[in-house]
Amino acid sequence: MRLYGFWRSSATWRVRIALAHKNLPYEYLPVDLRKDGGEQNAPAFREKNPMGRVPVLELDLDGKTRLLSESMAILELLEERWPEPPLLPRAAFLRARSRQLAMLVVSGIQPLQNTGVQLYIENELRVDATPWIRHWVSSGLAATETLARETAGTFAIGDDVSFADLCIVPQLYFARRFAIDLTPYPTLAGIDEACAKLPAFEAAHAKNMPDAPQSG
Amino acid sequence: MRLYGFWRSSATWRVRIALAHKNLPYEYLPVDLRKDGGEQNAPAFREKNPMGRVPVLELDLDGKTRLLSESMAILELLEERWPEPPLLPRAAFLRARSRQLAMLVVSGIQPLQNTGVQLYIENELRVDATPWIRHWVSSGLAATETLARETAGTFAIGDDVSFADLCIVPQLYFARRFAIDLTPYPTLAGIDEACAKLPAFEAAHAKNMPDAPQSG
Repeated sequence: MRLYGFWRSSATWRVRIALAHKNLPYEYLPVDLRKDGGEQNAPAFREKNPMGRVPVLELDLDGKTRLLSESMAILELLEERWPEPPLLPRAAFLRARSRQLAMLVVSGIQPLQNTGVQLYIENELRVDATPWIRHWVSSGLAATETLARETAGTFAIGDDVSFADLCIVPQLYFARRFAIDLTPYPTLAGIDEACAKLPAFEAAHAKNMPDAPQSG
Repeated sequence: MRLYGFWRSSATWRVRIALAHKNLPYEYLPVDLRKDGGEQNAPAFREKNPMGRVPVLELDLDGKTRLLSESMAILELLEERWPEPPLLPRAAFLRARSRQLAMLVVSGIQPLQNTGVQLYIENELRVDATPWIRHWVSSGLAATETLARETAGTFAIGDDVSFADLCIVPQLYFARRFAIDLTPYPTLAGIDEACAKLPAFEAAHAKNMPDAPQSG
């Protein structure tokens, strides 16, 4: 498998965690979202994903090499094809709740903070994108916190990692980057801390990607 | 089951189509998104969904009455619990592609056009939301069209209705409401036309909801 992504893209990051959790080897191919107006907008990449977004996963399916974008579609595919170790609980309600928490991030928060939206707000609307980002991230995290409290153990749904955690961890990294106060979200912060101790989350972390800026 | 929703909310509409397709009876409970700053923001509704969004599905699961928001989480639950008639293809790639098309709408377009975002742009940024909406809807539909062309038959994925169609139909209704030219998206328009002939889509249509404005 080959994963086209960007080190701090939260959608790419979710997929990296899933691949690491399921011990699936893959080649990581960086797409620089900031270079020359964004490599994701270049025709060569638009052929892989006409939406011009990372991640794109390239893999063999039904006897052909396929390209797939949209992180939740990728996570569902990985869960169906490589069910062990699982990333969804067995019980119907908890299973639904894990997807609900994931979607609160994937549809409720991330689309309002991504690079394309930031650039449009600053270049077209000519206003500072930071208050916008803080508004949507904070209100989305508040709802996620309220719901996560009802099901959280060590992780968002009890004591097993699931889709929800894969979405929460990169989202909190993003919130910190925009100096959003996380003290109103102790459950989410606790989940983040617990996930950080797991090898799959460490392996998938933005800071450990080859396209991340060198520290020090 | 009880479905809290709003007649023209595209996320509610997707769930209504799924329920009708699977012949699942439910009670429809309108939430007026425009009344008194939006009934979805009232404390009574926030207890059902802290995100303050429709739809919310109330149903018995694992022996308890549960509340579930986020349309994709609801669709996945309905598909798992009531698999017949299906709303996802069997083949792995087409199954993933149906979810990918659905997510292009659910995460790529709809979050940028919803009522909350429109109000924030107009009241906080003090700019007209219409160019913003047209920009994101048009670019999202263009990507959806390009991908749908590769798999479409009568519907988005071959000749069977799937998640993708449930998302495309309400999205096109929204686009028309904002006078967005749909001629660049003939595949999507064809899917919309084919869906309109199905009883499940007719039963779930916004115009047929009790909270829709009376015509004539």
